[in-house]
Amino acid sequence: MSEIRTLALACRDAAQAMFALDSEAKRRLLRDMANALEAERDAILAANARDVQQATAKGIQGAMLDRLRLDETRVAGVANAVRDIAALPDPVGLITRRETRPNGLEVERIRIPLGVIAMIYEARPNVTADAAALCLMAGNAVILRGGSEALHSNVAIAGVLRSVLEKHDIPVAALTLVEDLSRETMVELLQLSDLVDLAIPRGGEGLIRFVAEHARVPVIKHYKGVCHLYVDASADTSHALNLLVDGKTSRPGVCNALETLLVHRDVAGSFLPQAAQVLEERGVELRGCERSRALVPGIRAATDDDYAAEFLDLILAVRVVDDLGAAIGHIQRFGSDHTEVIVTRDDAAAGRFVQAIRSAVVMVNASSRFSDGGELGLGAEIGISTTRLHAYGPMGAEALTVERFVVKGQGQVRHPSSLVVRETFETH
Amino acid sequence: MSEIRTLALACRDAAQAMFALDSEAKRRLLRDMANALEAERDAILAANARDVQQATAKGIQGAMLDRLRLDETRVAGVANAVRDIAALPDPVGLITRRETRPNGLEVERIRIPLGVIAMIYEARPNVTADAAALCLMAGNAVILRGGSEALHSNVAIAGVLRSVLEKHDIPVAALTLVEDLSRETMVELLQLSDLVDLAIPRGGEGLIRFVAEHARVPVIKHYKGVCHLYVDASADTSHALNLLVDGKTSRPGVCNALETLLVHRDVAGSFLPQAAQVLEERGVELRGCERSRALVPGIRAATDDDYAAEFLDLILAVRVVDDLGAAIGHIQRFGSDHTEVIVTRDDAAAGRFVQAIRSAVVMVNASSRFSDGGELGLGAEIGISTTRLHAYGPMGAEALTVERFVVKGQGQVRHPSSLVVRETFETH
Repeated sequence: MSEIRTLALACRDAAQAMFALDSEAKRRLLRDMANALEAERDAILAANARDVQQATAKGIQGAMLDRLRLDETRVAGVANAVRDIAALPDPVGLITRRETRPNGLEVERIRIPLGVIAMIYEARPNVTADAAALCLMAGNAVILRGGSEALHSNVAIAGVLRSVLEKHDIPVAALTLVEDLSRETMVELLQLSDLVDLAIPRGGEGLIRFVAEHARVPVIKHYKGVCHLYVDASADTSHALNLLVDGKTSRPGVCNALETLLVHRDVAGSFLPQAAQVLEERGVELRGCERSRALVPGIRAATDDDYAAEFLDLILAVRVVDDLGAAIGHIQRFGSDHTEVIVTRDDAAAGRFVQAIRSAVVMVNASSRFSDGGELGLGAEIGISTTRLHAYGPMGAEALTVERFVVKGQGQVRHPSSLVVRETFETH
Repeated sequence: MSEIRTLALACRDAAQAMFALDSEAKRRLLRDMANALEAERDAILAANARDVQQATAKGIQGAMLDRLRLDETRVAGVANAVRDIAALPDPVGLITRRETRPNGLEVERIRIPLGVIAMIYEARPNVTADAAALCLMAGNAVILRGGSEALHSNVAIAGVLRSVLEKHDIPVAALTLVEDLSRETMVELLQLSDLVDLAIPRGGEGLIRFVAEHARVPVIKHYKGVCHLYVDASADTSHALNLLVDGKTSRPGVCNALETLLVHRDVAGSFLPQAAQVLEERGVELRGCERSRALVPGIRAATDDDYAAEFLDLILAVRVVDDLGAAIGHIQRFGSDHTEVIVTRDDAAAGRFVQAIRSAVVMVNASSRFSDGGELGLGAEIGISTTRLHAYGPMGAEALTVERFVVKGQGQVRHPSSLVVRETFETH
């Protein structure tokens, strides 16, 4: 048997042990993990220093190096994130529906863990702790496959967390770190459909496409967030301006940042020049349609590629549209099913927008930047799904569980002719 | 562009039209479809007669020929099934959660359709109508790929249903029947991950494995139902006998039929001989462990293959176990995550069984044959999922939808520094 299959088999057995834990046991486990991360901070930082040194030697720099680097504050942040997860409501065991059938059967729908979750991610070592904590809190076992740049950090963090599992008499395989980072092993992991219940890739579009392409296990993913802000004819343009600036400039490198502005032609003349001025003061480059360029001279023409792009940068595509229907049509054509915003004072327009747009998150008069598990009340987030199945939008602990049926009867059979006992053993 | 891609693109556009329909429009559509199936009964039966003739010429007979054959009663049954689906609660638009965040954002979770569902099935032409009706009722568009034996029947039924879509001014592509039944075209359909939201295979294990192997779109499936009945030490043995007979003999060819009986050693001596007698009178062959064979002389020895088998026939594997833990261990090893039953008068034992078994449906003192969408209150069933994701167990209309987020604000931004308007346009 291959090494990765052996690991996954042990992880699946450990999933049974995780399934048996009650909420308090899981909370104690996670709180001890948070404490252990702090207690072992120096060892974690030493391992991280080796990763940073190797990355620097390889010429890695900028945002990628920053994502890799840990310091005392970040380790404390990771520990606190694990504590926050320990304080979340436990989705496991939740009875979501209960019905008594005409024949007296009591039918309940109850949440149970998914089982074994494979997390595939890139350079951020904090994912090792917080994704693991969220999977464990939802009663799952987890297989972590991080990026090679962070391997020493990940081994150190996973080692700390596994020592806590051991102290709690839980099989350490409940948290399994894959140290063989070859593509072949990742592909094999993604094809263990009898052992792995879900794969969640987190990282760049290349990684996610690779996972989707090779997986035989279920995958929940999002490729990109091409988020739109539509300024309706009836919009409060002050709100529109605030939401535009927040959406585009407060953190341009994340998936819930705005990429495209759509403006109703009736307000374009007053709104667009003002918006362009404010955005340009903040270093945003605009790329527009013909009508936008007539209103804001000097900006570049937008291509279809611009409208489909997730810039992740201070660039904004702009289009003036004839009406709400045209805005909806644009989003249906270019959207990525992530997050769209309408700014309007017209409830009917808001209703029509919500009705026609099938994205995971639709905002009315609120910033796209709220499209986040923490901000929408999930407490923590393991990712944002644009797969319209199981979970759609930000995913918290509940998205790591599934409802099943528990049925209680008093001996009911489906076919009356099966009641042999009444015929055969009259004495009963 | 390939023909199947062209079909799927049109189907995806039609999904937008389906998304826009309100409940009443969908109910009217389905009722008209039911009426049209009855009105066009003779044409459907004529097409079916061609299928039956060709199948007979190919030597198809028995259960398979029976599944293919339609008659007046069956067409009426199909029409009535469509009427029943039209009367189901509409899951689309249902607000499942509502919360106001500290910053005033109103966050709602609302069910929307999945989009485009591909149904892959075998010889039963009634699936063409009832799977289509359930997908449409949940606001989806559907691509149907049935078996070649039923092609004439499927073309006739789909034609009738599409003519009703046309009368209702809904793009007929909302119900698309694939007539090119080559394997290559099926594989291509299963890889249209930008156009198809979910594939549901229904049929034999071979078909389902083929779909799972080749799909790049999400698949919800079940391979087999190896359902267990465990008779606890404290069982009401009359109940146990009824449930055993119902589970094994009332319809042995279906996935919720029993395949394995586990008996606590304390009751094996009294229960097993009695059970064996009743089952043998009904033509059931037993295959047992050593201890079972000592109690019921003359039965064949059970192998591990027998314990893993979905017999779909009047055969039952039997094992005497030392205790509840051993029964759980057996099910964890050989189970298929479908349906398991415990017969007990001991609430603690029932609780421990439910707690340890992660199957989609767990029954306490009730027949495995109730593991069915209609019996468990879903109204209709598109399949039974043993994929622990999205839906687990019988799937009704709700399983053909997903929750998304709708957020209403009053201009909230995530970062206070984004409030440019207050600084720049004081007059507002």
